[in-house]
Amino acid sequence: MGFDMAGKTATGDTAGKAPAGGPAVGKVHLIGAGPGDPDLLTLRALRLLQEADVVVHDRLVSDEVMACVPSHTRRIAVGKAAGFHPVPQEQINDLLVELGLSGLTVARLKGGDPTIFGRGGEEFEAVRRAGIPCDYVPGITAAQGAATSARFPLTHRGLATGLRHVTGHRARDAALDLDWASLADPQTTLVVYMGAANMTQITCELIRHGMPSDLPVLAVSQASTPQERRLHATLADIAAVLAREPLPAPVLFVIGHVAAMAEDCALPSELYRPEWRMVAHG
Amino acid sequence: MGFDMAGKTATGDTAGKAPAGGPAVGKVHLIGAGPGDPDLLTLRALRLLQEADVVVHDRLVSDEVMACVPSHTRRIAVGKAAGFHPVPQEQINDLLVELGLSGLTVARLKGGDPTIFGRGGEEFEAVRRAGIPCDYVPGITAAQGAATSARFPLTHRGLATGLRHVTGHRARDAALDLDWASLADPQTTLVVYMGAANMTQITCELIRHGMPSDLPVLAVSQASTPQERRLHATLADIAAVLAREPLPAPVLFVIGHVAAMAEDCALPSELYRPEWRMVAHG
Ligand SMILES: C[S@@+](CC[C@H](N)C(=O)[O-])C[C@H]1O[C@@H](n2cnc3c(N)ncnc32)[C@H](O)[C@@H]1O
Ligand SMILES: C[S@@+](CC[C@H](N)C(=O)[O-])C[C@H]1O[C@@H](n2cnc3c(N)ncnc32)[C@H](O)[C@@H]1O
Repeated sequence: MGFDMAGKTATGDTAGKAPAGGPAVGKVHLIGAGPGDPDLLTLRALRLLQEADVVVHDRLVSDEVMACVPSHTRRIAVGKAAGFHPVPQEQINDLLVELGLSGLTVARLKGGDPTIFGRGGEEFEAVRRAGIPCDYVPGITAAQGAATSARFPLTHRGLATGLRHVTGHRARDAALDLDWASLADPQTTLVVYMGAANMTQITCELIRHGMPSDLPVLAVSQASTPQERRLHATLADIAAVLAREPLPAPVLFVIGHVAAMAEDCALPSELYRPEWRMVAHG
Repeated sequence: MGFDMAGKTATGDTAGKAPAGGPAVGKVHLIGAGPGDPDLLTLRALRLLQEADVVVHDRLVSDEVMACVPSHTRRIAVGKAAGFHPVPQEQINDLLVELGLSGLTVARLKGGDPTIFGRGGEEFEAVRRAGIPCDYVPGITAAQGAATSARFPLTHRGLATGLRHVTGHRARDAALDLDWASLADPQTTLVVYMGAANMTQITCELIRHGMPSDLPVLAVSQASTPQERRLHATLADIAAVLAREPLPAPVLFVIGHVAAMAEDCALPSELYRPEWRMVAHG
């Protein structure tokens, strides 16, 4: 099947569960793995991982989270990682349906939260269309993971009245289709997922649409893991800084005043505008 | 002190922990309680709740989550609930500092995630300014709780390319200060926190700024608890529906196409536009 399996094949040894007349239908849980630190799993996620017959996981799900899965449980790696051809989404959907129809309890483990930028909705729809029970189990998002380890709030009185998540990923050959005028609001914390490759365009467009060029930006790589790395810059120079000093994937960007509240903030102090320095640091 | 305490007073019985020369400084964890279901706590949150000397909790934190706190642990209720005068934020900050300085390990338990619309940043700054170690422990947001129990994705290919959190709360006498033109993007899922009182204004402004009046809206009350209630409507009629049939607090609103993917969706079928019905339901 072309999947990266540990141990058995996807369709083996389910006959034992089949009542006369064909196997009972199983179920699929779309589970958020959180940003990487297994301590940030929800109680429900951990329990379902321990009860599952098979875990279908993105390659980005951390080894530490995968270590919560009992060693006898079958694992199937799908999804993207550098150096691997991603399994096409259609094929992942088909795999979940196949496993569910064969009577298994499937834990489909995705980075962060399964309902945010994870194509979880597409998997849910495919599984339900096949008549298989399916639910979401939420996870701590990468943005929350970054806020936790760098110790800054995602909203803050006087600095950020709202929070926005966008994807900076461009579908093949398509232009980056973002509503720049709407995004250029320095009072909203803007979290850019999957944006590393397009940071030059993103920051240029934001500045062109009125964002202050000295707005703080925090790039966080592998948030919440022991390999976490952070990089502070401004909207004007983050792309250049990143080109000089690339960060290992996955990386997210926090654009907005709250980024200056992050710990070990290496922004030169003249970049803290007095008016919001006061708000942020009293 | 005017706080709602179970058992002892805030400053009692800490002398035992004080080394000669004054008490060692304690620490404060700003912990996300999630939307209400204790099964959605993170592993770290549960552990820290069980280890704390004192739990300072918003009144909105569910009884089921509070039941995870050992019975011998001191509890102090602060924050808002219908029929109570909220403890002013300044006083909560002072309480956390006082408890931390007296050498206690404090679990400050807040609904959802502590870094999102919870004034967690202000508490963090006050505690750190007093020289007390402080960190954030993330929690599942109310929006994620709603998505989990109503089983819809917060982003979805073709329906919502981004996710935005705003507050619909108006500071006393102030106008609702939102950038309506920027918010009126039907391709972004808009989650409105603390918006029940101002839904008429919010929906009118959004429609005036170009949002389709038949855009689906999902109101979710007490998401993830046994008391959860949901209400489907359109942008044009949600305020009227809510006036006829008020929902118990807390309530959040999900505005956008993905709201129509929620379970038990009671939207009349003619409101599903064929083009996105196809995307959503295949
Ligand atoms: C397909 S999206 C998945 C988002 C995920 N569902 C969530 O809720 O956070 C993948 C992107 O998430 C971000 N990401 C995921 N985990 C991360 C981590 N531990 N540190 C930094 N960024 C991360 C990166 O921007 C990455 O390109
Ligand atoms: C001060 S904000 C706190 C938000 C929280 N920090 C979070 O991350 O979800 C309070 C608002 O959150 C929303 N909220 C919190 N818990 C909720 C729940 N269980 N169901 C619905 N809405 C909820 C309501 O809009 C409420 O007015």
